[in-house]
Amino acid sequence: MTTRFNQPLGGNEMPRFGGPATMMRLPSQPTAEGLNACFVGIPMDIGSSNRSGTRHGPRQIRAESCMLRPYNMATGAAPFEHLQVADIGDIAINTFDLKKTVDIITEAYDAILAHDCIPLTLGGDHTLTYPVLRAIARKHGPVALIHIDAHADINDEMFGEKIAHGTPFRRAFDDGLLQNDKVFQIGLRGTGYSPDDFNWARKQGWTVVQAEECWGKSLKPLIDDVRSRIGDAPTYLTYDIDSLDPAFAPGTGTVEIGGLTTWQALELVRGCAGLNLVGGDLVEVSPPYDPSGNTALIGANLLYEMLCVLPRVP
Amino acid sequence: MTTRFNQPLGGNEMPRFGGPATMMRLPSQPTAEGLNACFVGIPMDIGSSNRSGTRHGPRQIRAESCMLRPYNMATGAAPFEHLQVADIGDIAINTFDLKKTVDIITEAYDAILAHDCIPLTLGGDHTLTYPVLRAIARKHGPVALIHIDAHADINDEMFGEKIAHGTPFRRAFDDGLLQNDKVFQIGLRGTGYSPDDFNWARKQGWTVVQAEECWGKSLKPLIDDVRSRIGDAPTYLTYDIDSLDPAFAPGTGTVEIGGLTTWQALELVRGCAGLNLVGGDLVEVSPPYDPSGNTALIGANLLYEMLCVLPRVP
Amino acid sequence: MTTRFNQPLGGNEMPRFGGPATMMRLPSQPTAEGLNACFVGIPMDIGSSNRSGTRHGPRQIRAESCMLRPYNMATGAAPFEHLQVADIGDIAINTFDLKKTVDIITEAYDAILAHDCIPLTLGGDHTLTYPVLRAIARKHGPVALIHIDAHADINDEMFGEKIAHGTPFRRAFDDGLLQNDKVFQIGLRGTGYSPDDFNWARKQGWTVVQAEECWGKSLKPLIDDVRSRIGDAPTYLTYDIDSLDPAFAPGTGTVEIGGLTTWQALELVRGCAGLNLVGGDLVEVSPPYDPSGNTALIGANLLYEMLCVLPRVP
Amino acid sequence: MTTRFNQPLGGNEMPRFGGPATMMRLPSQPTAEGLNACFVGIPMDIGSSNRSGTRHGPRQIRAESCMLRPYNMATGAAPFEHLQVADIGDIAINTFDLKKTVDIITEAYDAILAHDCIPLTLGGDHTLTYPVLRAIARKHGPVALIHIDAHADINDEMFGEKIAHGTPFRRAFDDGLLQNDKVFQIGLRGTGYSPDDFNWARKQGWTVVQAEECWGKSLKPLIDDVRSRIGDAPTYLTYDIDSLDPAFAPGTGTVEIGGLTTWQALELVRGCAGLNLVGGDLVEVSPPYDPSGNTALIGANLLYEMLCVLPRVP
Amino acid sequence: MTTRFNQPLGGNEMPRFGGPATMMRLPSQPTAEGLNACFVGIPMDIGSSNRSGTRHGPRQIRAESCMLRPYNMATGAAPFEHLQVADIGDIAINTFDLKKTVDIITEAYDAILAHDCIPLTLGGDHTLTYPVLRAIARKHGPVALIHIDAHADINDEMFGEKIAHGTPFRRAFDDGLLQNDKVFQIGLRGTGYSPDDFNWARKQGWTVVQAEECWGKSLKPLIDDVRSRIGDAPTYLTYDIDSLDPAFAPGTGTVEIGGLTTWQALELVRGCAGLNLVGGDLVEVSPPYDPSGNTALIGANLLYEMLCVLPRVP
Amino acid sequence: MTTRFNQPLGGNEMPRFGGPATMMRLPSQPTAEGLNACFVGIPMDIGSSNRSGTRHGPRQIRAESCMLRPYNMATGAAPFEHLQVADIGDIAINTFDLKKTVDIITEAYDAILAHDCIPLTLGGDHTLTYPVLRAIARKHGPVALIHIDAHADINDEMFGEKIAHGTPFRRAFDDGLLQNDKVFQIGLRGTGYSPDDFNWARKQGWTVVQAEECWGKSLKPLIDDVRSRIGDAPTYLTYDIDSLDPAFAPGTGTVEIGGLTTWQALELVRGCAGLNLVGGDLVEVSPPYDPSGNTALIGANLLYEMLCVLPRVP
Repeated sequence: MTTRFNQPLGGNEMPRFGGPATMMRLPSQPTAEGLNACFVGIPMDIGSSNRSGTRHGPRQIRAESCMLRPYNMATGAAPFEHLQVADIGDIAINTFDLKKTVDIITEAYDAILAHDCIPLTLGGDHTLTYPVLRAIARKHGPVALIHIDAHADINDEMFGEKIAHGTPFRRAFDDGLLQNDKVFQIGLRGTGYSPDDFNWARKQGWTVVQAEECWGKSLKPLIDDVRSRIGDAPTYLTYDIDSLDPAFAPGTGTVEIGGLTTWQALELVRGCAGLNLVGGDLVEVSPPYDPSGNTALIGANLLYEMLCVLPRVP
Repeated sequence: MTTRFNQPLGGNEMPRFGGPATMMRLPSQPTAEGLNACFVGIPMDIGSSNRSGTRHGPRQIRAESCMLRPYNMATGAAPFEHLQVADIGDIAINTFDLKKTVDIITEAYDAILAHDCIPLTLGGDHTLTYPVLRAIARKHGPVALIHIDAHADINDEMFGEKIAHGTPFRRAFDDGLLQNDKVFQIGLRGTGYSPDDFNWARKQGWTVVQAEECWGKSLKPLIDDVRSRIGDAPTYLTYDIDSLDPAFAPGTGTVEIGGLTTWQALELVRGCAGLNLVGGDLVEVSPPYDPSGNTALIGANLLYEMLCVLPRVP
Repeated sequence: MTTRFNQPLGGNEMPRFGGPATMMRLPSQPTAEGLNACFVGIPMDIGSSNRSGTRHGPRQIRAESCMLRPYNMATGAAPFEHLQVADIGDIAINTFDLKKTVDIITEAYDAILAHDCIPLTLGGDHTLTYPVLRAIARKHGPVALIHIDAHADINDEMFGEKIAHGTPFRRAFDDGLLQNDKVFQIGLRGTGYSPDDFNWARKQGWTVVQAEECWGKSLKPLIDDVRSRIGDAPTYLTYDIDSLDPAFAPGTGTVEIGGLTTWQALELVRGCAGLNLVGGDLVEVSPPYDPSGNTALIGANLLYEMLCVLPRVP
Repeated sequence: MTTRFNQPLGGNEMPRFGGPATMMRLPSQPTAEGLNACFVGIPMDIGSSNRSGTRHGPRQIRAESCMLRPYNMATGAAPFEHLQVADIGDIAINTFDLKKTVDIITEAYDAILAHDCIPLTLGGDHTLTYPVLRAIARKHGPVALIHIDAHADINDEMFGEKIAHGTPFRRAFDDGLLQNDKVFQIGLRGTGYSPDDFNWARKQGWTVVQAEECWGKSLKPLIDDVRSRIGDAPTYLTYDIDSLDPAFAPGTGTVEIGGLTTWQALELVRGCAGLNLVGGDLVEVSPPYDPSGNTALIGANLLYEMLCVLPRVP
Repeated sequence: MTTRFNQPLGGNEMPRFGGPATMMRLPSQPTAEGLNACFVGIPMDIGSSNRSGTRHGPRQIRAESCMLRPYNMATGAAPFEHLQVADIGDIAINTFDLKKTVDIITEAYDAILAHDCIPLTLGGDHTLTYPVLRAIARKHGPVALIHIDAHADINDEMFGEKIAHGTPFRRAFDDGLLQNDKVFQIGLRGTGYSPDDFNWARKQGWTVVQAEECWGKSLKPLIDDVRSRIGDAPTYLTYDIDSLDPAFAPGTGTVEIGGLTTWQALELVRGCAGLNLVGGDLVEVSPPYDPSGNTALIGANLLYEMLCVLPRVP
Repeated sequence: MTTRFNQPLGGNEMPRFGGPATMMRLPSQPTAEGLNACFVGIPMDIGSSNRSGTRHGPRQIRAESCMLRPYNMATGAAPFEHLQVADIGDIAINTFDLKKTVDIITEAYDAILAHDCIPLTLGGDHTLTYPVLRAIARKHGPVALIHIDAHADINDEMFGEKIAHGTPFRRAFDDGLLQNDKVFQIGLRGTGYSPDDFNWARKQGWTVVQAEECWGKSLKPLIDDVRSRIGDAPTYLTYDIDSLDPAFAPGTGTVEIGGLTTWQALELVRGCAGLNLVGGDLVEVSPPYDPSGNTALIGANLLYEMLCVLPRVP
């Protein structure tokens, strides 16, 4: 296959267990220059409140992405025919200081966005979405948000701190980074401290879909509705792997039972086709709790599916 | 939050990976005195016929309960606002003699029940339900039984023995501990020796719902029906973790494929709200086969959900 | 229980964690002589393109089969009342030469089939189905095929080679071993190189049911339709464990998310009752990626279910 | 190689990952008839006081023995040239009753010894050595004992019970099964309740060599001394895998740090050549705590080394 | 056994797999009041530069301490006959801010030391030793230091930060917390940036014993020399589990090969008897990398051995 | 630090858990042009006779090399001050055909050697050393060989095949690639088929040092002797990770107990300083059997140590 764009290294050129450990065995480059979209890692876990280990997420997601081939058999998307994509490596966070790390991230994403490149982020704990959204909003203005997660992540503080993996969307709200009528939180469940743990979001005009409403159903109607309500607003998709039931995705830090299935996850991400996606992330993969590697493998697949629904991909 | 009752230690007071390894990081006390409900462990596996390891169940369930917060986001239950609850530790079983252990358990539960405290038991192999039911029936008379399991556990003997983890409900029947028209066995499946492995129960008037009848369905209608048929009879809920498909709960000893999902499990336990529950147990978590800890984590969640449906909790 | 046929060693004669590590703790014998059906292992992984380890599949499937009892509680099948069955051990493949191995397998199955014995094969990577089908077609003529898998396995070549675990059904087609109007591929999904990765099969008249069509549904209607379209043609059933979602079956080498559930798998295999099955296999169990043993355990169960639907079992 | 004796199945006849899962892939037979030595399993863990799982020891030791070839490269022993050996399977213990199990074992070993066959036992928890010694002493009179272990196993009672894995040598003493001037306990260490935990043995005339005396040394001088003090007395060798440091043998239930190395273990067993060995066992391998399988593999090797030092092997 | 001091819960009162998950199953209390020594946890990993997970160290060390009995069979120490000891739980660190955590720790240890109680700390990453030493020196003045580790931990900065797990002894030096002629670093090895990585310490008058000098030797002469050079100075013992070779202690974050053995570790800690120990810690146990639990078990043993050499224990 | 040569990415520039997954986080390039030495992977396991998985060795060795810093604290070597080094990726082997793979490897090494670059190979199973030696001898003539291994790998055939991981040194002998008076095999042990399994080598003039001769000793005298006997002959160093005792290196396929320690391994590799090394390899790391990653980590360290003893490094 000849093309003017980067292609993932194929299994007939190099066995899948060999070759570079980049995302999808794509070429790597140090900046986003010349790219339509990039994969970029943020190896952090210092915002985690329970089990750590997501610092190793980007490396493991890349390792498990080696099986991915370029063509999407379900949707017919062929993203590498339409987009120049590369793996631009990891952000050099300061693992000893969470607050400085947040600023490092925003600065790095400003640089990516300056190239008009859409970042797809390999996390890392969910704290990262706040500094990414700061850069995104600086470029695109307040965005619509599709947030798939077991947790609302809207605490005002955790242990007295404003920055942690349970606060990013509260901070994004505080900074005016979101279009509040176009924020969707899907998959929330578990235990909390009070009804306000979810209702605060509803009070801001956000739509909250608890996991219980998703059980045993196709989520196509839901995402169709989300899509029509968002319209052409610039949209950010943040996918927390713990939205999935731990049967599917054991390798994460704050586990809640009764979650989504991978087929529902695929419906949700595939259902974003047609939106004006300006960025996306896949967070909270914790390899030490993922001995089979399959949580990272789901992460790699969902990131590929995000690529398949970017605006330029037919 | 101020309350007159014990509260789980909160994540803003102590990180979730620290603090006491009691159930939900609750205070511990040596007896059930002054409690409305208690968590109590029975660390045994000598009644197991296949893989062992459930002796470590109570310790692991407690460890994995550290993520649980006090408020139930799905049902609105706030059990610690209405009940005095503590972790009263483990029963000192005799691990070298199964028959003596059975008597030790009954005696210990007589003491718990003397305090009018509802016991929620962290198992341990399923043998334990028989001696617990002996104490329960001594206090409450014969009870209704909701038994969720892959296996009927109604063998008359195993390897010539009357006491084993495959016989507790036959022994309970023999001793007249059950209201036979109000016994429900849900989730049964797998291989056996003859049709009578399930039909003996039906012949006694018990209701048997095989796993095949549950596949791909909400179990709310089922548990609604169970509830209406039980009415206000004193009811015991025994939850064998192997009722779940091993995708969800690999950490158990006698695995059968094609089982229930965690969302069905949550429907069943939550559907017990309104019953006159006098006790419950969660059995057969085997940590050596649960490297991610998620089977124990499901166990911890289901025990919390049992607490949320106890009679005094609105 | 007295019978003239071999019986699995029972749990009341020998604890399940003891006794011979044969399939279902059945007697073993060196050939298929006198048998109606046999379990036979092919310990190979040299046809694998990604993770290896399926060479250990037969040994692990046998180890995990120790829980299986003779009677099928769901279907009422009692195969050991109607069939003489034994475990005839493993084929001595040449693990250093894939092409020679393929010929060794065909020769070995010719010998099995000469005894009018139906082989149920414990794999082993999927390459093996091609040489098995060669022997099958030599005896029965071209066969109907029920192929449950995440992948089509119809590549013409992999890395320039004609023999590999991604090519068996292309080779079977080339050799005229199949009745092309009676070939069914169920569960296909994931990424590929082009639409033809699945459409080539459709062009030959095969029926392809992608995983997306199976999500959240009972597959009884599907298999009923398959059965009626096959009628009484001699039929081969090949079950690749990676058809299952990795939540259920992590222990395999080429993992694709969004797959089938074990309840769907049971529906499919049980739905083969009434067909003229002339052989079956269960492939791609890779024990190094299956720390709980549960993937092998599913494999053991599905092989038992295949036995339960063989022609002579009512 | 032609011989009149059973041979292990060779790697050039069947790949090592295939073939029967018997000890060393030897032929199996149901009794000890006609054998000079046999491998026999006792799948039990109900005598264990801490972690369980040794019930799976025999099966796992056999699985990991598949790499063993017939000739001992270090010592030149070729046991299968001089002994008729087979795997006679497992003892059908009663896993629900420890006291009955002890009697079942003695009875089974009486039968083995009636064939003048030397039993090499695959354990199983250490409780088993007491009933084996009862049978041994019935045939040979009181024996010399070489006992390699982290623990003395001479408690009078555990939790009030006379039979448990911490009492076998106290029971053997009580029954007069041992020649007290020829009892050697090697490798003892760790914590206890009082000095008498080791000194009781010394008071009976036994020789106790604590692990600290073994650190960093060749143990050839020690075993040479043991051998000369035993002379030609009938001798039983009992090897508890927890004598090894857990770096070598993590897969066991009552772990003590600062233990022996595998090279010391090999020196000890090889140093038994020339003794009048009448039996041996390898106990306390617990596969659930041995994910690599290497503890079982050590067990298989040490059992093979025992075979290499049996009286008839030059 | 009757005593006026707290005793570990014994195995004949409660099976070792049951009972409270405190250190050695000792009683717990919220402060150090009335204690001669205490076990205290610091659940932190946010100072780690490579793998995380040490936040779970205290909980796992406690879980694995359940096998420890009160009497030291090797040394004859009976610490619970001479000291009042309890487990005072964990320090409530701020897991989102490393710098605040350091101050929280010092404050907590000031409170412990105010009770004249010797703290034995369950780590946690090595950052913690700096704030502990601040409190220790405030009470006792500059101390002698025995530091057993693979790494010198004397970086001036890591990633531009003064506080991290590679800097504690540089900070202690800067603050004048150490008697520089009485600082001993034992076990250092691996790769670095320049010779100064170890030589800076030597230039301050510290004694550095690289691992290579320890290979294959008893370390009794070394620790005897250390002890005589320290004399009666107040001494702090800090034991980094990664000083051990990863064969012994795989469960840690910054692994270096060619390390110490557990018998050398026992020699070193036991060799501290007679010193004026004023505190000790055991750091860098990372449970996610310790599936067998044996690294934590070594940690529990070494902490017990520290207790056995405290000044009041004969 | 400024230098004209490539440097490993430092921990103060990028956290160790981030950055490229190349060997030591060095720059990568597609050929050996301009390099003094290169790291190159051969991802193969199809020559393995027991457990597979070494196909994943190169990727895992690279991942675990992330901790390595440039300066050798033990020897003072600073290889990146004196050599231009890069990671040139993996050889695209044909995983479906072992014989073709052998030729692919020789051709690839011819190309590397054409650049006067010294290859350090990340294996992969031991079959690979034969085709590497073919290229080496084509350039340098017959070489001295230092072969550290549990096995002699001198079989004439395995299962009738000339090419397999048990035959490379027999093939090298047949092709005249070795200086037979300068071949050293160190660490051999275990079981075999006959004395000739080791003695054939001795008959050709090779020196065989069995593991038993190494136990409990420094190997510096041995390697000093080897070095003096080799003199300035071009020398190839092949290090099979299974030479190590499985306590140290569990992650390999053909495990033999009683092996070398990592300190002995370091002595051997460091002792090669001064030789005229023309190439080296580290083989048989099998990640599926190495859950902690520490076997790969040892492999990464030993490859680094090989780099430190290349001729130009002082």
